[in-house]
Amino acid sequence: MHQIGIIGYGGMGRAHARDLLHPASIRFAAAYDIDPVRMELAKQDGLVACASREELLSMPEIDTILVAVPNNGHLDNVLAAIEAGKNVICEKPVALNGDELAQMQAAAQKKGVKMTVHQNRRWDKDYLIVKNILESRVLGKPFRIESRVQGARGIADTWRRRKAYGGGMLYDWGVHLIDQLLQLTDAKIISVFAEFQYLSQNEVDDNIRLTLNFDDGLSTLMEIGTCNFLMLPRWYVCGKEGTALIPYWDCKGEIIISNGKEVTWEDEIQTASLMGPSKTLQPRGENTITHLPLPDVTPDKETYYRMLNDALDGKGELPVTPAQAVRVMKVIDLAFKSGAENKVIHIPEGF
Amino acid sequence: MHQIGIIGYGGMGRAHARDLLHPASIRFAAAYDIDPVRMELAKQDGLVACASREELLSMPEIDTILVAVPNNGHLDNVLAAIEAGKNVICEKPVALNGDELAQMQAAAQKKGVKMTVHQNRRWDKDYLIVKNILESRVLGKPFRIESRVQGARGIADTWRRRKAYGGGMLYDWGVHLIDQLLQLTDAKIISVFAEFQYLSQNEVDDNIRLTLNFDDGLSTLMEIGTCNFLMLPRWYVCGKEGTALIPYWDCKGEIIISNGKEVTWEDEIQTASLMGPSKTLQPRGENTITHLPLPDVTPDKETYYRMLNDALDGKGELPVTPAQAVRVMKVIDLAFKSGAENKVIHIPEGF
Repeated sequence: MHQIGIIGYGGMGRAHARDLLHPASIRFAAAYDIDPVRMELAKQDGLVACASREELLSMPEIDTILVAVPNNGHLDNVLAAIEAGKNVICEKPVALNGDELAQMQAAAQKKGVKMTVHQNRRWDKDYLIVKNILESRVLGKPFRIESRVQGARGIADTWRRRKAYGGGMLYDWGVHLIDQLLQLTDAKIISVFAEFQYLSQNEVDDNIRLTLNFDDGLSTLMEIGTCNFLMLPRWYVCGKEGTALIPYWDCKGEIIISNGKEVTWEDEIQTASLMGPSKTLQPRGENTITHLPLPDVTPDKETYYRMLNDALDGKGELPVTPAQAVRVMKVIDLAFKSGAENKVIHIPEGF
Repeated sequence: MHQIGIIGYGGMGRAHARDLLHPASIRFAAAYDIDPVRMELAKQDGLVACASREELLSMPEIDTILVAVPNNGHLDNVLAAIEAGKNVICEKPVALNGDELAQMQAAAQKKGVKMTVHQNRRWDKDYLIVKNILESRVLGKPFRIESRVQGARGIADTWRRRKAYGGGMLYDWGVHLIDQLLQLTDAKIISVFAEFQYLSQNEVDDNIRLTLNFDDGLSTLMEIGTCNFLMLPRWYVCGKEGTALIPYWDCKGEIIISNGKEVTWEDEIQTASLMGPSKTLQPRGENTITHLPLPDVTPDKETYYRMLNDALDGKGELPVTPAQAVRVMKVIDLAFKSGAENKVIHIPEGF
């Protein structure tokens, strides 16, 4: 059984460890954190609390390190773990930019260890429902996918508010939503456009819209808001034959598709009263559409660790492959550039 | 009493005339259309049905012409009406581009007649509610306004599907939504970005997103969709202190604002189950927010004609001023350019 040591036993490190107190194939065995209070928590959670990073990295029974420190500390800790001959799971964002990630991946390759990213939201229920809908092709050819998370608290009062620590919402939630979107299509990204707003404080981004266009005509939007007292839907997925909408994390959404019956234009004036005169925007007649429930999906949160275990045993791909990690970081790099210059970045060859 | 002659007695020409069968200050007196069937309708509606445009333009009791032909015919008919010494109300879009509009305005000025545009949706209830909300400052400083209209019928099977006639949704609905947005702020536009998709057929745009950024930090989105079986809200208005949302034309929406009480970060983990671990995106506690109803607004559709009447009498501004018409057409011109090149167009000096 693979044993994992955790560097950084804050919110996420502990959340991951407690998610998997009784896993089948992976065991969180030990932890190191600079904060003695957190070391107490690690002990309470049944982990060995190491006195130093060196102590943790020198435990022979541990073959894999989970790095869960603030974002600006990923590079140093990942490189130290690799240098100690350990496989690495790094919290997202794996790095602050593509250059840092390239350093990590080069070091891992040189040392012959494996490295992956903790994109745990690939196993969220809402996302898996969308993936299922797209794979079923029930909406016809998708032309627009919108993925939003919104709140009204500003950014939590932690290091995530600080630029020096790699704070901000693109690194925090953006990297999840981008990773999810990239898993929903095989097409190549041909343009990146990011809009940032800085609302509650000026140090880091707290409001983002990121548009990715793909070479098959698909357009995707990822939006993160921290000053939204009323929310737009978590997912809005448009295909040429139908639309799926998931309002919130409880996944009580709906699907409407065309039933193939052609629309007629005779009866629209009678129903026009609410919106004023418009033929084009009249609702579809109920006889031309079909209402469908969302597909029933049961997420298995252990999938990530099962895949990790198999990959460490040489029996499968890492749950997040090096190429996938590179692609997400490339989007992040281009998003920051696009936002800073307020321009669309074109990548004619796609990636 | 000012008497109006209508050139083009199709859907919109007739809709305007029938809106105002008993107006206080304006009388629709006569019409000309190339289609004899429509001329019969005009007679039934109590209008004089002229045998030719020349006959209509030579009626001395008519001092104002409403041009309501397909978009590609606006320039010719507006110039003819001006040449005949008539004031002109032109259906929206007033012209296919800024150059055409400049020709019209130069001719009107030379002839000493007045010319305005039929932006009748400035008196729609949903829009007036948003205007009221923004004027009341109840949301604090606005940073994002989203105005959407969506349907799932494609474009109505009329000339609006044809490029040669000035079809497409930017000319049809876009010009309304842009005009509304520009009335909601005194700030200057500093960038224009338009995304077009061509979904149901290739000749004209049937899916548009247009982002305007203003020099005070406000960002606005205007979106029109014709392949949306489920809809996003008609209006979504975000200020730093609250959000307003109007789902549909029936104007049953809501407002939530901060009540000034600071958010706390202690209780969030308990409520995190649905969305997984996140402090930032936890819902605000009910004790920190206030729910408000939408303001009660009663639109008066005759306002347009009352303002027109006053302006023709030299007692006020036209309901849509020449400068306002120019600004909307400039946005349309830049939107087509932005969409064609898929790039953000910056206007550092603003307009």
